[in-house]
Amino acid sequence: MNIVPGWIRSYQKPWLSGDAIAGVIVTVMLIPQSLAYALLAGLPPQVGLYASILPILAYALLGSSMTLAVGPVAVASLMTASALQPLAVAGSADYVALAMLLSLLSGGMLLLFGALRLGFMAHFLSHPVISGFISGSAILIAVGQVKHLLGVKAGGTNVLDTLIQLAQAVPHTHGVTLGIGAGSVLFLWLARKYLAPWLVRAGVSPKLADIASRLAPMLAVVVSTALVAALRWDQTAGVSIVGAVPQGLPTLALPKLSLPAIEQLWLPALLISLVGFVESVSVAQSLALQRQQRINPNRELLGLGAANVASALSGGFPVTGGFARSVVNFAAGANTPLAGVISAVLMGVVIASLTGLFHYLPQVVLAATIIVAVVSLIDIQTLREAWRYDKADAMSLLATAGGVIALGVEVGILMGVALSLGTLVWRSSHPHIAVVGRVPGTEHFRNVARHAVTTEPGLIAVRVDESLYFANSDALLDRVEQLVAAQPDTRHVLLVCSAINQIDTTALGVLTDLERSLAQRGTALLLAEVKGPVLDRLQGTALGQRLEGRIFLSTHAAFEHARQAASTV
Amino acid sequence: MNIVPGWIRSYQKPWLSGDAIAGVIVTVMLIPQSLAYALLAGLPPQVGLYASILPILAYALLGSSMTLAVGPVAVASLMTASALQPLAVAGSADYVALAMLLSLLSGGMLLLFGALRLGFMAHFLSHPVISGFISGSAILIAVGQVKHLLGVKAGGTNVLDTLIQLAQAVPHTHGVTLGIGAGSVLFLWLARKYLAPWLVRAGVSPKLADIASRLAPMLAVVVSTALVAALRWDQTAGVSIVGAVPQGLPTLALPKLSLPAIEQLWLPALLISLVGFVESVSVAQSLALQRQQRINPNRELLGLGAANVASALSGGFPVTGGFARSVVNFAAGANTPLAGVISAVLMGVVIASLTGLFHYLPQVVLAATIIVAVVSLIDIQTLREAWRYDKADAMSLLATAGGVIALGVEVGILMGVALSLGTLVWRSSHPHIAVVGRVPGTEHFRNVARHAVTTEPGLIAVRVDESLYFANSDALLDRVEQLVAAQPDTRHVLLVCSAINQIDTTALGVLTDLERSLAQRGTALLLAEVKGPVLDRLQGTALGQRLEGRIFLSTHAAFEHARQAASTV
Repeated sequence: MNIVPGWIRSYQKPWLSGDAIAGVIVTVMLIPQSLAYALLAGLPPQVGLYASILPILAYALLGSSMTLAVGPVAVASLMTASALQPLAVAGSADYVALAMLLSLLSGGMLLLFGALRLGFMAHFLSHPVISGFISGSAILIAVGQVKHLLGVKAGGTNVLDTLIQLAQAVPHTHGVTLGIGAGSVLFLWLARKYLAPWLVRAGVSPKLADIASRLAPMLAVVVSTALVAALRWDQTAGVSIVGAVPQGLPTLALPKLSLPAIEQLWLPALLISLVGFVESVSVAQSLALQRQQRINPNRELLGLGAANVASALSGGFPVTGGFARSVVNFAAGANTPLAGVISAVLMGVVIASLTGLFHYLPQVVLAATIIVAVVSLIDIQTLREAWRYDKADAMSLLATAGGVIALGVEVGILMGVALSLGTLVWRSSHPHIAVVGRVPGTEHFRNVARHAVTTEPGLIAVRVDESLYFANSDALLDRVEQLVAAQPDTRHVLLVCSAINQIDTTALGVLTDLERSLAQRGTALLLAEVKGPVLDRLQGTALGQRLEGRIFLSTHAAFEHARQAASTV
Repeated sequence: MNIVPGWIRSYQKPWLSGDAIAGVIVTVMLIPQSLAYALLAGLPPQVGLYASILPILAYALLGSSMTLAVGPVAVASLMTASALQPLAVAGSADYVALAMLLSLLSGGMLLLFGALRLGFMAHFLSHPVISGFISGSAILIAVGQVKHLLGVKAGGTNVLDTLIQLAQAVPHTHGVTLGIGAGSVLFLWLARKYLAPWLVRAGVSPKLADIASRLAPMLAVVVSTALVAALRWDQTAGVSIVGAVPQGLPTLALPKLSLPAIEQLWLPALLISLVGFVESVSVAQSLALQRQQRINPNRELLGLGAANVASALSGGFPVTGGFARSVVNFAAGANTPLAGVISAVLMGVVIASLTGLFHYLPQVVLAATIIVAVVSLIDIQTLREAWRYDKADAMSLLATAGGVIALGVEVGILMGVALSLGTLVWRSSHPHIAVVGRVPGTEHFRNVARHAVTTEPGLIAVRVDESLYFANSDALLDRVEQLVAAQPDTRHVLLVCSAINQIDTTALGVLTDLERSLAQRGTALLLAEVKGPVLDRLQGTALGQRLEGRIFLSTHAAFEHARQAASTV
């Protein structure tokens, strides 16, 4: 593998303008988001900025998507807060050190999975489960931000508890804070809903209008900061502000490694890795599809792993590919990860020299940004479609969302994984098995339930339409036992293996048992249309030896054998 | 469902003698085993006896196997010890109460799974993983018993630690204890290996010889107890004996329910349930197969669940279907669960009046029984076969066994589940997809890679040989994108749906994306041979509407459509 990424080697000049414009726009979007998601994760604001420089560069070197925008995102920030809050005081130096460690573990796991080529892990979760997980997390996040909107203190270990505490705290609402917050939410919501259509009607291109509407949070930040700074509301009205954000690029350092901390963080790190990876791949893939590009899940593991290790080394916290930011990056015309590189450089300039600008930024505006951003993640559309199309999928979605809301983000995602894999095992344990017969006058054999075919007396021919392995081989055994029990005069059971690409050790054992059990009753097992590689492997086994002379090239030949055997009785 | 089990309603008199003989033989085998497995689980000996009465009756009422012998088994006893040792002192009243609670939780879960009809859970583990798990557990158990053989104290949190402590304790070896122990091990091993062949040569039937050899542990118990009682080795030589075993039937009582205890025990209970269920089903199924009977995994869940609840209510600990005991029960001629009922009644008689007989039983003989029993569970045969047949399966087996030995029984089984499900997801994410063409002069369409077929210019026809769902739909998308990228003049992509029995919500989304992405390039997606139920569901969806007029009954019709479209350009 060449160390210089393909997109650099084949870079073409005309791509530059799109990359530059997208880089600038994403930066303007990223600044308030990175501050807000640091707040959501319980971290000082500069940690959000740190997580928006080196991780982007690392992903640009190793990732496979041309347009995925990596950085702090809402769900990973929530999961970070959920993992760290039992272990340290939010915002403390210990808490920051644990966040870096979490990011290092998560990145290390992703790199390991990438090296082991475990990109197929993207299929551990079904789409309804991902949708339910994100919707549930969004509700959890939004409810958690309401206290900032009211300017009150409220904790709560679960949603219900938080709501009760919020209700009790309502009398202590801080008027000015609520005013700024409610104003910001209203403005951001109106901008998101009406700005783009309005601009389009005013003659702006739809793409440009959409991008402009995405910059509303930056406008809210600028206006509210100016207002607070001018009127000194932090002193005169007691509005919480971000305050002094340390200026200067992050220093590189390895997070403190401690075995007890690793023992407590490995599972959250694994869950953050899995969720971040699955979500990134699905965003990257849907964008790539629109430009007939392709992404490589194994390279995504490496890119996201490197991004998280880079985040850990530069004082950041877990990052992944963000949905909204990637869509804007794509729409703004990004052609290659150079857009991300430009955005990282701009973020570096901001941190090195402009953090003073955030001093008077009211925290409630960040909360408003988070609320409006996550409410748009609540995905009713998928629920509605799944409900109409497949109730079982809709129930998985609801169960995952409910699990996140009632039991927390970690239990929720574990439930989601269990539901997805449970469905997979259930489906696998019900393979399609057909009894086949001869299409009269031909050498074609079809399902007796769907075609007018003739069968041979004393012969049951069964075709299983899948490879045989541990999850489905018992179903074949059961079906054959059922068929033979219903026709006790069966002398031959023929297994048509045309769709069997592989037989695993468990299935080999089941077939061996089946052959013996049939033999005890004087019924012979025959095989037909066994594929070359399957046959090669069978030949070294006890079953292969017992079946000698009973493996036929074609179903036709096996039928002829059974017919002759019957006529010689 | 009739409340009286089928085997009672249809009981036939000729079955009685077989059931009675098997019941007696299993009881003789069960007495030393139930004492030994209580010892292994860290429980007083009577707990093992309690777990051998009501559980058997409960299983007889609800289970579906005619010959499965339920009761204390080695692996579940090891898992019980592993779950309880961090929580209470082995043998204490608290420890016994926790064991009952563990059994209640495990039984409750199994009943719940049975009510939800989750019998397909038997397919969560592949055979090599089960084999590796049992072999690893057997090694763990055998090493743990060596201290009893030497008559020394040795703890150790893992195998290596235990071995080091044992080495250090060797100088303190208790000579008489080692003598009885080594003698018992030698006798039991010789009996297991040579008694049956010797009896056969002496003219005994092989079945009877095998059963006789299974009764050697009882003989060891009788002889060693008599020896110790006669010579008072407990006093003169300091040999540890079982001592006073409380006489009388167990009293029925609900285990103490405490939320903190439940929080600590739910995961071990779940793992014990899963392992016990998977193992029971595989034993029950292999026995049923030999008599052309069938077992029902959902009823097995109910039977085992009821057995564990019954064990919890009568002072016992987790039970499941035992391999060796079921095989003896089967070989001794058991026809129905009446054999188990008889055995339970006999165990009741033993507990009610004969526990005084165990007073002088040396503990080391129980340890010898355990060692010889579990060493026979170490399954080199499956490893050897898997190694020859499928290296990946062999590696799963070794990794699971290694995990159990190095990291303990709980981490080991979780690794096994992860390996099994990982394999399943990996396999599912590589479905068989074939590009098909027309067999010249016919309306048959076959894989272009395997048959001489003709294709239509501008048309790519793809057949996927599986239902489409979340784990494999991306593979289809990737393959089609690849094919279209290689033939940019493609005007039609035909998906032959003959093997697709279901399309889940995730796959529907992927197909919708694929159709849009193709349409952007002026390529139309066509479907053919869509099955009725799949078509019905598609019609309500956005994809169904977009595909109107492009869904064809046969591949032939779709090819004709593509040909005409090409000729009208």
